[in-house]
Amino acid sequence: MSHPFFERHQALLEQATQAIATRGYWSPFAEMPSPKVYGETANADGKAAFEARLNQPFALSQPGTVGQAGKEVSPYGPELGVTYPRPDLDQLFAGVAQGMPAWRKAGPEAWVGVSLEILQRLNRRSFEIAYAVMHTTGQAFMMAFQAGGPHAQDRGLEAVAYAWDELRRIPKQATWEKPQGKNDPLRMEKRYTVVPRGVGLVIGCCTFPTWNGYPGLFASLATGNAVVVKPHPGAILPLAITVEVAREVLDEAGFDPNIVTLVANDPSERMASKLALRPEVRLIDFTGSTANGDWLERNAHQAQVYTEKAGVNQIVIDSTADFKGMVRNIAFSLSLYSGQMCTAPQNIYVPKDGIDTPEGRVSFDQVAAAIGEAVGKLTGDPAKAVELIGAIQNDGVVERIEASRALGEIVADSRVLEHPEFPGARIRTPLVLKVDASNEAKIMQELFGPISFVVATDSTAHSIELAHRGAKTHGALTLSAYTTDAGVTERIRDAAEDAGVALSLNLTGGVFVNQSAAFSDFHATGANPAANASLSDAAFVANRFRVVQSRSPI
Amino acid sequence: MSHPFFERHQALLEQATQAIATRGYWSPFAEMPSPKVYGETANADGKAAFEARLNQPFALSQPGTVGQAGKEVSPYGPELGVTYPRPDLDQLFAGVAQGMPAWRKAGPEAWVGVSLEILQRLNRRSFEIAYAVMHTTGQAFMMAFQAGGPHAQDRGLEAVAYAWDELRRIPKQATWEKPQGKNDPLRMEKRYTVVPRGVGLVIGCCTFPTWNGYPGLFASLATGNAVVVKPHPGAILPLAITVEVAREVLDEAGFDPNIVTLVANDPSERMASKLALRPEVRLIDFTGSTANGDWLERNAHQAQVYTEKAGVNQIVIDSTADFKGMVRNIAFSLSLYSGQMCTAPQNIYVPKDGIDTPEGRVSFDQVAAAIGEAVGKLTGDPAKAVELIGAIQNDGVVERIEASRALGEIVADSRVLEHPEFPGARIRTPLVLKVDASNEAKIMQELFGPISFVVATDSTAHSIELAHRGAKTHGALTLSAYTTDAGVTERIRDAAEDAGVALSLNLTGGVFVNQSAAFSDFHATGANPAANASLSDAAFVANRFRVVQSRSPI
Repeated sequence: MSHPFFERHQALLEQATQAIATRGYWSPFAEMPSPKVYGETANADGKAAFEARLNQPFALSQPGTVGQAGKEVSPYGPELGVTYPRPDLDQLFAGVAQGMPAWRKAGPEAWVGVSLEILQRLNRRSFEIAYAVMHTTGQAFMMAFQAGGPHAQDRGLEAVAYAWDELRRIPKQATWEKPQGKNDPLRMEKRYTVVPRGVGLVIGCCTFPTWNGYPGLFASLATGNAVVVKPHPGAILPLAITVEVAREVLDEAGFDPNIVTLVANDPSERMASKLALRPEVRLIDFTGSTANGDWLERNAHQAQVYTEKAGVNQIVIDSTADFKGMVRNIAFSLSLYSGQMCTAPQNIYVPKDGIDTPEGRVSFDQVAAAIGEAVGKLTGDPAKAVELIGAIQNDGVVERIEASRALGEIVADSRVLEHPEFPGARIRTPLVLKVDASNEAKIMQELFGPISFVVATDSTAHSIELAHRGAKTHGALTLSAYTTDAGVTERIRDAAEDAGVALSLNLTGGVFVNQSAAFSDFHATGANPAANASLSDAAFVANRFRVVQSRSPI
Repeated sequence: MSHPFFERHQALLEQATQAIATRGYWSPFAEMPSPKVYGETANADGKAAFEARLNQPFALSQPGTVGQAGKEVSPYGPELGVTYPRPDLDQLFAGVAQGMPAWRKAGPEAWVGVSLEILQRLNRRSFEIAYAVMHTTGQAFMMAFQAGGPHAQDRGLEAVAYAWDELRRIPKQATWEKPQGKNDPLRMEKRYTVVPRGVGLVIGCCTFPTWNGYPGLFASLATGNAVVVKPHPGAILPLAITVEVAREVLDEAGFDPNIVTLVANDPSERMASKLALRPEVRLIDFTGSTANGDWLERNAHQAQVYTEKAGVNQIVIDSTADFKGMVRNIAFSLSLYSGQMCTAPQNIYVPKDGIDTPEGRVSFDQVAAAIGEAVGKLTGDPAKAVELIGAIQNDGVVERIEASRALGEIVADSRVLEHPEFPGARIRTPLVLKVDASNEAKIMQELFGPISFVVATDSTAHSIELAHRGAKTHGALTLSAYTTDAGVTERIRDAAEDAGVALSLNLTGGVFVNQSAAFSDFHATGANPAANASLSDAAFVANRFRVVQSRSPI
């Protein structure tokens, strides 16, 4: 049966399902925090809404609340002072179960309609969410707005579109008529009912809580499941606001708001593993470390587990038609949000005897130096730099920077910057090192944060071999390459396809390897150890529901 | 790029993809072993081809063959005497790996074209395969022909259609053009390449080696994977012929025939678990026991595992408009292939105070007696009976029949029948018992074979509760119900949807609950413990491939 929210957003859904099929540029949610789009007072209102959250309990009328949890500290300095309901899990899940039968029976159009309405309302809260993302992840405001708001909403909508694209292809009924020669045919009426799997658990990360959390949340919700959201203890607020909005919409639509709930925890508590083994949990979407992701894949047998883990992203430099553009582009990728993106490059392979450029041969040391200088330039003016590199999410990253200095020869050292607005902010510029490819053990591990290596290889063939093995063995979300040679291009493409890693070629302008555009770029392939799923594709949604048929003779 | 085999079968593929969308009756492979369809000499030729296989090695030029394996014995008496290549697994997998890059690069149209050509050729071998199925599984000839031949081919084609339906929706390329206000747009050319997961392992069962084996085999092959087929040691020959045909077609199409290989083993050897943990194996399709299926789900972490396991299929009798038709239909379902179908009913719930029929109230004992008598009638004439009940696949089933006599009061006893053609055949008629619902531990376990219970319940509500709990807790592939009451129908439907089990209502004619029609019926739901996947749906195929993209500025 149709649903008012479904009807309201049907045109948008239609566009979204076309977009995932054609995969050109498309984005329904404006990425610029422009007053023209979001309203003259949107920024001030959003900031005020964010500030009104601070230093008090975040109200959610969830079942089984037995206390408060939450100890977020902004990477820009202050403690947020927000606390969240701490649930007794047995009581919470019992409460969630009560609303599930009605939600199951509501069917695909209601599930999808409610999901779309939630996304639209989240879009209107983009400024509030942006400040929440900024002060939990450490992203600079512009990235927090874009990646935490409209881009995350795009990714959520993309997941809904994939879900709908599968759901709509299951007929509600069919007449089956089998010829019996001269006798009357056998005739059966068949009904096909889509049913959800159960409870979906979303385990958030501390760097992109909404961008990485929305695909799983909306893929599960749009296929009729209940969703329990377990944010990273360092970045609860953006997902708490999301849960609040979802509950409002569910309630308005006549469903039990407990179809979407929040489980917050303090950094000292183990919570994800407890939740992940609950028998009610049949779907898990995880973004985080390889160790935790592998643990889920190996232990949460009752659930379908989708993981986005760690990897070693790499750049192969063979030759370029635009040396300056290449260097600037790479330096930007290394600096953006201090390399704290799962797509940020880490290892840059350059043949030890240099590369061809329009200006002639450039030596390995010159390539390394140029990248180091470009990073220095981008981070030279602290006031400008902090808008690009943001803050370091946690002390672990700072410690990793310190420890990594010993891993190679310093090309660009990591410096402490003072934030003009937030004196207590944890700001570090990128560390760029150079090493010989023989140091494989040092470079073939994910060093999350602004740490990268310019690696001297024997040749481009050697670079490709390293990149191939690195992606295949250690996982990678991105591979970037620079070459003017068609044969090299083909060899790199073949290596990327065999290792199952997305390839970007010759990025010298305004597109960066870290960026992944919803509706066009598949984020992760699921084909190497960095992730077992892609955001989003049919495989990401098709297993979140089942079809139960009934048949009777006519 | 297109492929000659793809072009040859494109019209068939188009029909198949329409059939899975509309789900009415459709079958491209004729189910009657008619000389008009298959040729005047097809039966004799097929029988001769089967007989020519006996008592000698089955030749397959696979890599790494270090001996012979295989000790199949026909349930109709004779040892087959066929032996198969015994591979050294390291050598075999090394050989398989050699052909994989070219197969990966061939792309979706080649994968699908080759798969369709294999299916067409298997269809022409239906008689030979039918005799092989009959003399390994114990099925009577007609079922062996239909289920082992055309119906299995239908299920294979269905999997290919689902695969193609997903593959064709991934564009080969896209132009991404993002507006930049007054500046030139950002423009990127993107390519999307489908890549397989690796090696798919198909673990066959001893009752429906082709029907249960083809969906996984063709789903993996049509998505570009290599496939290693590991038949049950009791039913190797039908899959060995299948592998032979697949290798012929691959070779003709210019691919390495080792893209499809056979691993046969003796009953005394453990082989499936060894194969399942190989790092090359990224997909596993399993049909068999719950213990083995659960083991795979819990241990083969490197692979996506699709299992069809055991369950307790049930019938709820509330009331009927056709008592005789109901009884005849149920008795047929209990007798067909001696209940050795994963879809055969086991527990028949009847309220202890009887049911309403057009002839008035019929007591519990009368319902039980009528079913027992109908089974007796169907199996009264041995010559006719053996064409319905076939032979018992293995001694374990015979032992289970013997042991089950103690579980209740006998309504119809299991008798030994003499096969008119095969004096050594292992033939048993169905055992029907009656018990009280309080004996839940006895009836809530799968007793594979011709063993069923008429269970006295307190009421239809109690029957539904048992059926719901049984399916949800122990798993079930089928649920059948008889009622003339619309309210009861709705309650049963709700129970079926919540327990995730396919429901058949009021079957009194020529359709039986055991039967599952490709392109229309989803076989298993994947939503209860009997199976974690459905044959076939989008979820069954979408995870067998990945998309690797590359992008470059224009």
